[in-house]
Amino acid sequence: MPDQTIFASEFSVSWGDCDPAGIVFYPNYFAWIDATFQAFLRLHGASQSVLRERFGAAGLGLMEAGATFMAPCAEGDRLGVAITALEWRARSLRLAYRGGIGDRKVLEGFEVRGLFVPQEGRLRAASLDGLRDMLEVPVR
Amino acid sequence: MPDQTIFASEFSVSWGDCDPAGIVFYPNYFAWIDATFQAFLRLHGASQSVLRERFGAAGLGLMEAGATFMAPCAEGDRLGVAITALEWRARSLRLAYRGGIGDRKVLEGFEVRGLFVPQEGRLRAASLDGLRDMLEVPVR
Amino acid sequence: MPDQTIFASEFSVSWGDCDPAGIVFYPNYFAWIDATFQAFLRLHGASQSVLRERFGAAGLGLMEAGATFMAPCAEGDRLGVAITALEWRARSLRLAYRGGIGDRKVLEGFEVRGLFVPQEGRLRAASLDGLRDMLEVPVR
Amino acid sequence: MPDQTIFASEFSVSWGDCDPAGIVFYPNYFAWIDATFQAFLRLHGASQSVLRERFGAAGLGLMEAGATFMAPCAEGDRLGVAITALEWRARSLRLAYRGGIGDRKVLEGFEVRGLFVPQEGRLRAASLDGLRDMLEVPVR
Repeated sequence: MPDQTIFASEFSVSWGDCDPAGIVFYPNYFAWIDATFQAFLRLHGASQSVLRERFGAAGLGLMEAGATFMAPCAEGDRLGVAITALEWRARSLRLAYRGGIGDRKVLEGFEVRGLFVPQEGRLRAASLDGLRDMLEVPVR
Repeated sequence: MPDQTIFASEFSVSWGDCDPAGIVFYPNYFAWIDATFQAFLRLHGASQSVLRERFGAAGLGLMEAGATFMAPCAEGDRLGVAITALEWRARSLRLAYRGGIGDRKVLEGFEVRGLFVPQEGRLRAASLDGLRDMLEVPVR
Repeated sequence: MPDQTIFASEFSVSWGDCDPAGIVFYPNYFAWIDATFQAFLRLHGASQSVLRERFGAAGLGLMEAGATFMAPCAEGDRLGVAITALEWRARSLRLAYRGGIGDRKVLEGFEVRGLFVPQEGRLRAASLDGLRDMLEVPVR
Repeated sequence: MPDQTIFASEFSVSWGDCDPAGIVFYPNYFAWIDATFQAFLRLHGASQSVLRERFGAAGLGLMEAGATFMAPCAEGDRLGVAITALEWRARSLRLAYRGGIGDRKVLEGFEVRGLFVPQEGRLRAASLDGLRDMLEVPVR
């Protein structure tokens, strides 16, 4: 069920989000994908500042990100961004996203994130077991 | 030769480009990748406004984009972003990018772009032959 | 009555809106002030694209902007931004803004905008009478 | 001598910095003003991370900011931003800025900043004497 919505946010596309072609400047889509993920973390009491305290992590940072863009967005559009899948790996979490305006599909995207903890002067991807426990609790 | 540099730009990472973990907020990497591409277009006399006039295009927009992040950047870093490959397809152009700070590899990324021309009320990806002629002329 | 709310928008402060000090990077406040104004325009059927068609304007651009910051915002805050006053001058419109989180005042700001119309190869500030007619109609 | 250049940075205006009117989205000017200031701090060995360690400060944050915009910028412009004055007050620093493209004046701006130190659960503006000593040393 790749299209299941686990969590969703909505963003109002503004004039300043658009480029001279009048459509959204694409890095903004990644900012909205990220904002959706951070809101999901907060909903589960797992904001980055909580993760820092609990796991000594610098943050839940990016290893990879990507998106396919199906249709442009313009000023005034209400863009919904949904997390559609979480895949837990040993030291990374893969998130799948879908973005749309009403029924119109705008994008499909993904992020691969790691919980980066300072160790011997470098950031290393730590185990995600503790984070998984926090995020897999159903939230009403 | 995937590592060949076709064109490169450099960006100074500032305080405001970084998130509360003190490292670059990742959508900014896509903004720098895009800025590198736009500078490459301008160098060849093929800025978006020229493409609009010459080909009636709304713009040379995104179909896909993605990146793998190898190392974080922080305030004060000088990030170099290079276009390392152009792959011409029928109605799309795939660009490969590499980002680094000195010898340290920061990211590898790509964009797939189309030349979107309004047609029957929709934007459609047009032939890239004319653009290819402009971009493949060597520039000193 | 400088504190009267003429129109208001709300923004969810995300991780990526904040700087390494963990508080909002201040140019984002201006982006939210602008987004509030653009939403106000759209509500009155006076979006920038309508203004372009109706008045031949390049846009309703900025002559001045400024803000006083009373308190910081951080991730998870819901920032309300209100237009509190419109002052019509011959060829400019001065807008006053107030931003807050619940009862906590975050900022007071202003913008002075002009309707810039291309004339003899330059952009000139045009009369705002037509715009005033559009924006002063009450909207339910 | 309000026009004296104390420190200057240059920014290349890219496609993504511009709005659908084809000119720079104005919050970006504040991001460039801020970036100029942060580069000035780093030049004097007074980056925000140094200030955090040395003065226990959360950051050298904003109390006020404003700008007057004289001329628009568009893609491809090289915008120079100069710090033209530093005014030291008891617990705040007022910076004056000038932005231009070659000889064309683009903006005049200012920032009022304070060194915010956590004290009894709140951020308070601390003395700037130590910072002044760092910033007033001439740098070759």
